[in-house]
Amino acid sequence: MLRVATAECFTHGYVGREIHASASGYTGELGSEILGTELEGRVSVVAACFIPTISGLRELLGVDPPEPDYTTKSGAKAYSEEKDREVAKLMARAVRERTGADVGIGTTAGVGRGAICLDDGEVTVVARTDVRANLLKPDERILERQRQGIRRALRLFKAYVDGELERVVRKDWVVEAEGVTPDPP
Amino acid sequence: MLRVATAECFTHGYVGREIHASASGYTGELGSEILGTELEGRVSVVAACFIPTISGLRELLGVDPPEPDYTTKSGAKAYSEEKDREVAKLMARAVRERTGADVGIGTTAGVGRGAICLDDGEVTVVARTDVRANLLKPDERILERQRQGIRRALRLFKAYVDGELERVVRKDWVVEAEGVTPDPP
Repeated sequence: MLRVATAECFTHGYVGREIHASASGYTGELGSEILGTELEGRVSVVAACFIPTISGLRELLGVDPPEPDYTTKSGAKAYSEEKDREVAKLMARAVRERTGADVGIGTTAGVGRGAICLDDGEVTVVARTDVRANLLKPDERILERQRQGIRRALRLFKAYVDGELERVVRKDWVVEAEGVTPDPP
Repeated sequence: MLRVATAECFTHGYVGREIHASASGYTGELGSEILGTELEGRVSVVAACFIPTISGLRELLGVDPPEPDYTTKSGAKAYSEEKDREVAKLMARAVRERTGADVGIGTTAGVGRGAICLDDGEVTVVARTDVRANLLKPDERILERQRQGIRRALRLFKAYVDGELERVVRKDWVVEAEGVTPDPP
């Protein structure tokens, strides 16, 4: 059974919870048409953590993320898009290592399109959304970015489980792929 | 600013996320009439973790929970109601200490009405739902138990923030209260 753990910011823990639903044999709310109940008995969610703060990342995952460019009124961190990519990688790797899971997923989005990382120690894939939003000036795009982020994370994970990552990393929303060769067009 | 962290099982991380919504100035989905946006600027959610597995509790929180009475097909733990109360206390304390938060919330529900714990190092309150459900034989009561668990956790937390815990611990669904004296009837 494949063990997965998530450390999530802008996707609020939904990625892990949707995977847990499918793995438990029921459909979730936001990813049911992506996952269905196809993960039943094949995947175990070790933990799905929503970690909006720098101190949470430090204390719970033992990582030392860069100082945030901004902080919201509730103490949440906010990075630019470039730093989000670095931090999503830190989060995915750290939550995998810390929990002893086979694969980790990290997500974060401050100002820009955000970042989603899947990491298993050999393969590292980073994706983004198409939605430019600003955590510091929230409007309806925040929710739009979140929903697309959740769906893209689930697409990546489903492809990973099905051994089809080579096909997905060709998409224009995949911004980095190490340890996996894209299928020829 | 009050810092809170949650370690959740049957409430799937919703408790922390609803608190984060209110603290960020928008209303959540399941607790909006309990919290509104009243926590804005008063509370910071350090982390909200959905941890369905024993290994997740061990590795992420560093606790040594009792062996589960049962395990589901997706690897989730399932305790009897009495053990759920002990484990919810372990979870609340551990997530608070591990993240350096001021107050921790732990939730778990296997077979029975489940348990919700709020702990700040001096005050420990344990509550239950009214819904007897069985994680091993899921039916519509699982969702009913979850929703009530989320709402009761939010009620406890709101009372804590407002300094009104003495009033709430008189309720029949509060099963343990240390460090707080119930108001006279």
